[in-house]
Amino acid sequence: ADVKKIAVIAGDGIGPEVVAEAIKVMKKTEEMFGLQFEFEQGLFGGIAIDEKGTPLPQETLDICQRADAVLLGAVGGPKWDNNPKELRPETGLLGIRKALGLFSNIRPATVFDCLKEASTLKPEVLEGTDLIVVRELTGGIYFGEKFRREGANGEEAVDTCVYNVTEVERIVRQAFEIAQKRSKRLASVDKANVLETSRLWREVVNRIAPEYPDVELEHVLVDNCAMQLLRRPSSFDVIVTENMFGDILSDEAAMLTGSIGMLSSASLGEGSFGLYEPVHGSAPDIAGQGISNPIATILSVALMYRLTFGYDAAAQSIEDAVKEVLDAGHRTGDIAVDKSKAIGTVEMGDLIVAAL
Amino acid sequence: ADVKKIAVIAGDGIGPEVVAEAIKVMKKTEEMFGLQFEFEQGLFGGIAIDEKGTPLPQETLDICQRADAVLLGAVGGPKWDNNPKELRPETGLLGIRKALGLFSNIRPATVFDCLKEASTLKPEVLEGTDLIVVRELTGGIYFGEKFRREGANGEEAVDTCVYNVTEVERIVRQAFEIAQKRSKRLASVDKANVLETSRLWREVVNRIAPEYPDVELEHVLVDNCAMQLLRRPSSFDVIVTENMFGDILSDEAAMLTGSIGMLSSASLGEGSFGLYEPVHGSAPDIAGQGISNPIATILSVALMYRLTFGYDAAAQSIEDAVKEVLDAGHRTGDIAVDKSKAIGTVEMGDLIVAAL
Ligand SMILES: CC(C)[C@H](C(=O)O)[C@@H](O)C(=O)O
Ligand SMILES: CC(C)[C@H](C(=O)O)[C@@H](O)C(=O)O
Repeated sequence: ADVKKIAVIAGDGIGPEVVAEAIKVMKKTEEMFGLQFEFEQGLFGGIAIDEKGTPLPQETLDICQRADAVLLGAVGGPKWDNNPKELRPETGLLGIRKALGLFSNIRPATVFDCLKEASTLKPEVLEGTDLIVVRELTGGIYFGEKFRREGANGEEAVDTCVYNVTEVERIVRQAFEIAQKRSKRLASVDKANVLETSRLWREVVNRIAPEYPDVELEHVLVDNCAMQLLRRPSSFDVIVTENMFGDILSDEAAMLTGSIGMLSSASLGEGSFGLYEPVHGSAPDIAGQGISNPIATILSVALMYRLTFGYDAAAQSIEDAVKEVLDAGHRTGDIAVDKSKAIGTVEMGDLIVAAL
Repeated sequence: ADVKKIAVIAGDGIGPEVVAEAIKVMKKTEEMFGLQFEFEQGLFGGIAIDEKGTPLPQETLDICQRADAVLLGAVGGPKWDNNPKELRPETGLLGIRKALGLFSNIRPATVFDCLKEASTLKPEVLEGTDLIVVRELTGGIYFGEKFRREGANGEEAVDTCVYNVTEVERIVRQAFEIAQKRSKRLASVDKANVLETSRLWREVVNRIAPEYPDVELEHVLVDNCAMQLLRRPSSFDVIVTENMFGDILSDEAAMLTGSIGMLSSASLGEGSFGLYEPVHGSAPDIAGQGISNPIATILSVALMYRLTFGYDAAAQSIEDAVKEVLDAGHRTGDIAVDKSKAIGTVEMGDLIVAAL
């Protein structure tokens, strides 16, 4: 059989617990669908800082580079928050994105029916909301030159935001293609009335748009987008934007669904390789207690099956199993209305495996 | 009497209509409170492009510079959207901020009781929401060097984000002082895990904080803030942040109140000078029909009275009059539930003048 190599980087906090359940699900689908995976674990984030003195050891990068896909738990925690830059988990995250060429971050913001009430938005506003934020992930102000210097008014700090035509083209094309397979609406978000990088961005979008005549395109200024996400979330289908705006808007979009603990994400490069991770963080406050929710990570596996491997049937069965377990009323503490009836991480994983 | 000079730049779209009502209110308060204003009108924005060939004529700047305060309507419209940069209304806006040294933009996000239902957030989430965003307005990526160049991967665009210690200090101090007069909670928003300017920002905030021991300070990452504004809006009191983040977050905050058509803003520099304007835009689609809502502009006058002139009693009477008229059920089309009963711009202005 065609053995697929999966790099597993569980990371910090609840990362290892939720990843363990996702792997259980993968193993079950191996039997069911005749799939074959080879798992290789790597240290990453805070734990890698503690054990190897760097958030992204070369060894971990090697494991990722020889894999077909990466499953990531979560990284970070207060323990490393005041470390110097080179010894911070986030630095590892930026490093792995760059090293693996993951220029595109895809974040579906889906409303789970059973969690509708968890949103702070009115249910009628949320109705029909199902959008994807496509965020450029290896350019912009995240990766431009940064430095301090002495100025006329004391010390100053500088960040540089750079985009070239090629970087914009590849992410914009990908977004158009995703939109074509969905409701065929693309909102390109920029700040073209102020930024030169945004003007370049908009020029590229307008140049490419005629190649996708079936996709309805709108340009939305980032400040206006932050408002429209609140006012008319269901009117968005695919949103494409640069790195920093994508960071802010994808979090806003995730939160308005009320389902943030359930959302998965994919970071893609050229070809089919991808890194998959839950949207939520490492939740150090509840780590090790066995009460975290593994669903976002399990759904990240479904996303991996679809986007990297084309295992659509297996992906669908995972998504169906999750739905079945939720419909039967099972909840981990984060999504339980009656906390006294909440089940644990392993129990949730077991139920989903059983429902497969 | 002490005559105060007011520069009036009505601008484009509904700007002139709403400003006319605000001036009616000012004139009424002159009689009532023995105030004296001298108004001088200046061209600005699109209309200045059409008549003078530049969005910010020197003459208009002169009028502002010899005034004690500026009352601005709104600028912009589709007519000028595709103009080259120097001939765009926004360029005038950035120019006037810089020329007048307006380094601080203050935007109260208040929930009006009568408009609670207009928010897309659940009323119980909105309950008690009353926050102010203090946005740095003359620094950061808005004003840093911008250019195009040829790179290895085709044309590239560059924006530069720069902050010096002095710029951060003055805005942060102002925010601490505003917080001291309110609920004594300050959220400083940055992206210190990625940006050098944010690390400088955070250092300055931490250095200044001990001077305001009665203010509770939290640092919030910008992506997290975009989420927390949705999850727990009422937990914020004063939010201080840099220019670009402030642009995005102040619009998000305004929209979540449901009262965006009613919100006023102040842009301040050193001393008591200030520019006051409604948060809403020029609404070209309804301009000239006499149906726009003048309340945000009228409330901007109240803000001017408080912040620039210390006319607290007159400010209070304007705010009370607005409340009275709304409580009596009068609505312009934008905020009316029953649109058939909506009143016009002038009628709303008259009612508020009568209620004074
Ligand atoms: C941790 C941080 C560097 C990261 C980012 O800003 O990209 C995170 O917020 C994310 O969105 O993955
Ligand atoms: C028109 C634009 C340049 C401006 C800004 O981004 O500052 C506007 O959005 C605002 O917030 O006043």
